[in-house]
Amino acid sequence: MDFALDDKTKALAEVAKRFLHEEVIPAEPQHAADLRDAENPWRRTPTARRLAARARELGLWNLFLPGEDGAGLTQLQYATIAEISGWSPNLMPQAMNCAAPDSGNMEMLRDFASPEAKDRWLKPLLDGEIRSAFCMTEPAVASSDARNIQASMIRDGDEYLINGRKWFTSGAMNPESEIFIVMGKSDPTGEPHRQQSMILVPRDTPGVTILRPLTVFGYLDHDHGGHAEVDFVDVRVPVTNILKGEGEGFAISQARLGPGRIHHCMRLLGMAERALDLVGHRAWERSAFGKPLAKQGTVREFVANARITIESLRLLTLKTAWLMDTVGNRAAHTEIQAIKIAVPREVQAIIDDAIQLFGGAGLSQDTPLAELFAAARGLRLADGPDAAHIASLGRNELRRFEPSEAV
Amino acid sequence: MDFALDDKTKALAEVAKRFLHEEVIPAEPQHAADLRDAENPWRRTPTARRLAARARELGLWNLFLPGEDGAGLTQLQYATIAEISGWSPNLMPQAMNCAAPDSGNMEMLRDFASPEAKDRWLKPLLDGEIRSAFCMTEPAVASSDARNIQASMIRDGDEYLINGRKWFTSGAMNPESEIFIVMGKSDPTGEPHRQQSMILVPRDTPGVTILRPLTVFGYLDHDHGGHAEVDFVDVRVPVTNILKGEGEGFAISQARLGPGRIHHCMRLLGMAERALDLVGHRAWERSAFGKPLAKQGTVREFVANARITIESLRLLTLKTAWLMDTVGNRAAHTEIQAIKIAVPREVQAIIDDAIQLFGGAGLSQDTPLAELFAAARGLRLADGPDAAHIASLGRNELRRFEPSEAV
Amino acid sequence: MDFALDDKTKALAEVAKRFLHEEVIPAEPQHAADLRDAENPWRRTPTARRLAARARELGLWNLFLPGEDGAGLTQLQYATIAEISGWSPNLMPQAMNCAAPDSGNMEMLRDFASPEAKDRWLKPLLDGEIRSAFCMTEPAVASSDARNIQASMIRDGDEYLINGRKWFTSGAMNPESEIFIVMGKSDPTGEPHRQQSMILVPRDTPGVTILRPLTVFGYLDHDHGGHAEVDFVDVRVPVTNILKGEGEGFAISQARLGPGRIHHCMRLLGMAERALDLVGHRAWERSAFGKPLAKQGTVREFVANARITIESLRLLTLKTAWLMDTVGNRAAHTEIQAIKIAVPREVQAIIDDAIQLFGGAGLSQDTPLAELFAAARGLRLADGPDAAHIASLGRNELRRFEPSEAV
Amino acid sequence: MDFALDDKTKALAEVAKRFLHEEVIPAEPQHAADLRDAENPWRRTPTARRLAARARELGLWNLFLPGEDGAGLTQLQYATIAEISGWSPNLMPQAMNCAAPDSGNMEMLRDFASPEAKDRWLKPLLDGEIRSAFCMTEPAVASSDARNIQASMIRDGDEYLINGRKWFTSGAMNPESEIFIVMGKSDPTGEPHRQQSMILVPRDTPGVTILRPLTVFGYLDHDHGGHAEVDFVDVRVPVTNILKGEGEGFAISQARLGPGRIHHCMRLLGMAERALDLVGHRAWERSAFGKPLAKQGTVREFVANARITIESLRLLTLKTAWLMDTVGNRAAHTEIQAIKIAVPREVQAIIDDAIQLFGGAGLSQDTPLAELFAAARGLRLADGPDAAHIASLGRNELRRFEPSEAV
Repeated sequence: MDFALDDKTKALAEVAKRFLHEEVIPAEPQHAADLRDAENPWRRTPTARRLAARARELGLWNLFLPGEDGAGLTQLQYATIAEISGWSPNLMPQAMNCAAPDSGNMEMLRDFASPEAKDRWLKPLLDGEIRSAFCMTEPAVASSDARNIQASMIRDGDEYLINGRKWFTSGAMNPESEIFIVMGKSDPTGEPHRQQSMILVPRDTPGVTILRPLTVFGYLDHDHGGHAEVDFVDVRVPVTNILKGEGEGFAISQARLGPGRIHHCMRLLGMAERALDLVGHRAWERSAFGKPLAKQGTVREFVANARITIESLRLLTLKTAWLMDTVGNRAAHTEIQAIKIAVPREVQAIIDDAIQLFGGAGLSQDTPLAELFAAARGLRLADGPDAAHIASLGRNELRRFEPSEAV
Repeated sequence: MDFALDDKTKALAEVAKRFLHEEVIPAEPQHAADLRDAENPWRRTPTARRLAARARELGLWNLFLPGEDGAGLTQLQYATIAEISGWSPNLMPQAMNCAAPDSGNMEMLRDFASPEAKDRWLKPLLDGEIRSAFCMTEPAVASSDARNIQASMIRDGDEYLINGRKWFTSGAMNPESEIFIVMGKSDPTGEPHRQQSMILVPRDTPGVTILRPLTVFGYLDHDHGGHAEVDFVDVRVPVTNILKGEGEGFAISQARLGPGRIHHCMRLLGMAERALDLVGHRAWERSAFGKPLAKQGTVREFVANARITIESLRLLTLKTAWLMDTVGNRAAHTEIQAIKIAVPREVQAIIDDAIQLFGGAGLSQDTPLAELFAAARGLRLADGPDAAHIASLGRNELRRFEPSEAV
Repeated sequence: MDFALDDKTKALAEVAKRFLHEEVIPAEPQHAADLRDAENPWRRTPTARRLAARARELGLWNLFLPGEDGAGLTQLQYATIAEISGWSPNLMPQAMNCAAPDSGNMEMLRDFASPEAKDRWLKPLLDGEIRSAFCMTEPAVASSDARNIQASMIRDGDEYLINGRKWFTSGAMNPESEIFIVMGKSDPTGEPHRQQSMILVPRDTPGVTILRPLTVFGYLDHDHGGHAEVDFVDVRVPVTNILKGEGEGFAISQARLGPGRIHHCMRLLGMAERALDLVGHRAWERSAFGKPLAKQGTVREFVANARITIESLRLLTLKTAWLMDTVGNRAAHTEIQAIKIAVPREVQAIIDDAIQLFGGAGLSQDTPLAELFAAARGLRLADGPDAAHIASLGRNELRRFEPSEAV
Repeated sequence: MDFALDDKTKALAEVAKRFLHEEVIPAEPQHAADLRDAENPWRRTPTARRLAARARELGLWNLFLPGEDGAGLTQLQYATIAEISGWSPNLMPQAMNCAAPDSGNMEMLRDFASPEAKDRWLKPLLDGEIRSAFCMTEPAVASSDARNIQASMIRDGDEYLINGRKWFTSGAMNPESEIFIVMGKSDPTGEPHRQQSMILVPRDTPGVTILRPLTVFGYLDHDHGGHAEVDFVDVRVPVTNILKGEGEGFAISQARLGPGRIHHCMRLLGMAERALDLVGHRAWERSAFGKPLAKQGTVREFVANARITIESLRLLTLKTAWLMDTVGNRAAHTEIQAIKIAVPREVQAIIDDAIQLFGGAGLSQDTPLAELFAAARGLRLADGPDAAHIASLGRNELRRFEPSEAV
């Protein structure tokens, strides 16, 4: 066992930290101003584009992607960089071309799309020229379980005919989001895990309608391309747009979720560190009862407990990454669930406490805290609510003790 | 000891509940549409005005105000009505002319303003024709302790000259908010509790500038007239605008806070009941693991614990109201602090859990939950952060045990 | 609604408090010494007997019992006295002849026993001459649900033949505990709520064996007559020993549990107050970081939160008592469950925090804290574990929202 | 970074696990019977002696001790073994000659005692022939801060004269505990960290009196040699008995605490695993509401959260061990504090929940749970209460943000 970072990760982390502190955080106010002044605030801002160019120069580009197309990092190596990017979650992941849902979408395209599809969509995505969306969640069902999906995707000759309603389709409000990966039911009577398929639907396909943006708390999340409700009515795409093959949708989604979750968790830890950093400065600037907050017992208690929580959950997340690297996503299933449950929950609590320390400023646009809170809170629901994962993890743990029913 | 409601309260509560369920809640979607379509969304919407007229017809008007100008209810009697109004906190308190900060402002005007000032501002406020704001919190200091106030209010002949910056001035974004009660320092070198005064500043006084609205978790809170940052530069008002007298600001603020806090707490309990009501319906509509949420152990546990929390905190709040009625606001100080600490905190937790049960819908504009959450969260900071009240309550409790230092 | 104590309660509470502070608490060390020196520590100590004589003189006797045989107090009136007795839970309830399980047993004997049985056992119990036990819980089943009871109680002519194993039979280690009320199955194939009966079994009946005392944490609870495992092998008692009638066991147990739970809850609140009282004194005696604990933020926070919890749960418990008095035990079912869940849980947490403040002394025999903790912890399990009550309360709450399935 | 165990640790862990499951746990009932039947229950039981002989055969001996006298394991390697021994904390650490306080005492003797002292006491300790005690905590002061120590240790010619009162001296009730390491003040007016010294006091030195055993939640902890209150009145020992040198007491205690704490934490994690193991079996044996506990949502939730907590705290503890191995105890100070705070607290909560699942059996001597609880609870106070460590950790974290006061 060895808890030291390897040299490659250390070097990249150094670059990423400098970029964060010297260029990204200082650009946040300008980015906010860009958004306020934008004709279409769903598009990437000039500031975001400028930082992306800069990140690419610095080699902080597509780091999320294992293998040749990306940076060749392991999950363990990328994890540390992802955490740093979480300090400025609206800007830095985007600047590094590592933002959700593009990162997961690029991985799926690389692994499962046809050469033509790769050419048309993966290439510009890898170059940061377009963005993408992932259409899975549906308003009418508990769609975090892919088997509950109701959108239909019926083969009709050389085409699939798609009908259904999706929502919380992150990114889709951004008109640059040119390609949607849509999960639907291609075989409603098949074996439960083989009923679903994923298919590529270009944004401008007839029958695709972006209905409205959804809010998360009061935020529209322009930086993320928003969260859209999208209607699919008699949408037709060629069969070659299918990913991997008909009936592979569930399997792909399982493969996709592991990396997606671990990246979310690492960024969340960065968000918690950002909150603590803000608290650290505030604690010396503000006084109550005649001495700085930094000298108050309750503030020290909060900071101590937050530090312990972050340290232990970071280790659990890193170990999960290591398991994914060494024994694979499937074998790391329990750990992936564990961090998916614990990290957003605890980070939400830490940010909530940080807000309390800031008073009104913590609630408002004058600190990033309220928006960080909303993001962390949302991630307790993205990819399925805590409750489902807790129940599943508990069931698996208890299964080990189940008396065999042998005769 | 007797836990039964008196007949007058029972009858009023009956009317209020019918109004809520038959008229207010059904009007919420139209009110949201009004806001979307409004030229100036800070003004009261047509729906809000229509409901106000209706509430007045029903006798649900100015109930917050003890004595002849109001409905002559005790705090204990009003508490039950306030809770009901909290089910729809953006619409019903406003409809009943009982919304913060107008309710507290009307009470101060009635008790401490000159006859001219009453005529000019109290009368239209009592009639629901204008609205008002209370300018206390300042961005630069921990102003929940009135002694930290920095705005200056210097007597200059027959006028006071006011300079300072206020924020989280709720209501001030609404142009109908014609009168501001401003707290400032009139005697910076006086005895700590006699340095402050409160004065009436008409909105259109030269030197008053509404700088910008502040967000609370992304919400602008149009219904409440927003939360403004307001600048006062060389603002002059006649000395007759002072409330009660120079040096009385701290005393007035203490008197004002008791009723304000208890009304907030009762409305918060109504918000928690609304959340539970939404959960109750959802729990039968949605299924997971093959059975309705209503039959899941973890959902039952949440509902049971929420029920216990609400019941016990409601009793504590009612007892506090009873103490205010029977022994006065000062003698009820510990209890007022207790509910100020506990109610927003616990209601926040209940709404947070309710959101979790709703998934994406809970985060979005499709349920009231996220907005209720933001309101509850904000109330942990309004009138001073939890931490200050907890420390003060604990200190008072411990004082009882302090060894006397007598010889 | 009125939160004032009535005069009768106020007067009794005055007497009880004086007795507690001037006689009971000062006698605790002597009582501990009595126990250490006792030949048979399960018997009442000389100190306990002396205090009982004194309590009777003061009119603090059988206060738990409504009606003529007792003090004629309502549940609401007794609740305040029970809380005071909880400050010294090993001595004062016993001194007042109000200790569990005798109190519940006396109530059952009065209401459901034959005149002969009353003469033989109720009279000496009311006089504090003997003690009693209630044999319900069984080691092999979740017997908090009376329907799971397995002990058999089969009619055989003029006798019942009893076989079964009971445990956590509180009081039975005390040889003065002369009469056992035993719950068993008299009709294993009957309607589920009619299968059980309760019968009186004198301690010295052949076939009754006290097997061993059980510990609660490391305590034997001598004062309570311990918690025994008891074996019943071919035990025969006359049919006239049955309470109320065959098949009435479940109904009696339901009737019995309401008062028992509320008394436990009130005593628990007294235990929490005792812990806070100890903390209050300690907080001024001990210093850390150069100032008394009483001036530390985290200590103040603990005390403030404990105060809020106790106040709100006391009100909920008193309201429950009021409901039992006014609408009956059955109609107060939800509230009884609520306090059964919340009070032991929160009081355990408060005592746990108090221990932490005391350090080693808090763990040891030098303060009552560790023993109070064990008692509170045990009460989360007595009469059924929290989980069962939480699930039931949640189910009932959710039932209100169940869509009717009518056409 | 690498989360795999090295081969040496894996092999030892394999042996330790087999020993635990095949020999230690099966011997627990016999050990309990030995204690019941013992003439002097403070002495090691025959069962404990038999297991110690067996552990030595298996190479599971003195593993805690780095370097040649012990097994040459790193802290990281030993940590995994310590966790396994925590499953049976009364028997297995003792069997492995790795129990507190002997382990820490042996380390101090090896590092700081004179050759004669080593010969006389270290040798038989390493051979498991005698036991030892560490006299630090005092009843009158917050002695977790060594600077508060009041026992005096005054040089008088070739002797030190010792006077003072110690308590919670674990192990001292056991007459085999032949040597006490006593911390006292040798220079009350010196520099605060140089006032203390540690000295070896043989048990039978005139003036040493074992006053009484202290309980921990009712337990006497015979297996650990109890927790004694010890009086030192005009006790004289030769100056050569001093450890390291006069004035070195504080420095030695700092050095000692790191390893002690990490060993406690690892054993605590084993205790939590034992509790979960018991729960796992129970969850399939017991049913409620018509299905095994293992299929209940709330039980799954408990198990899932316990698993997450254990995994993340284990990683934090292992990382702390790694830091101690690589950068030293001093540099690992923050992490040592972090685990000292978090591990006992969370393990206490897990065991508490486990008890709840077991009902009465969980409270009693029929499962190890209540005793495990008391042990975990006690460890929140041993070596200083949580609060002190939390405040210190928080202060250190916040210090990073302190504005420099440079001109």
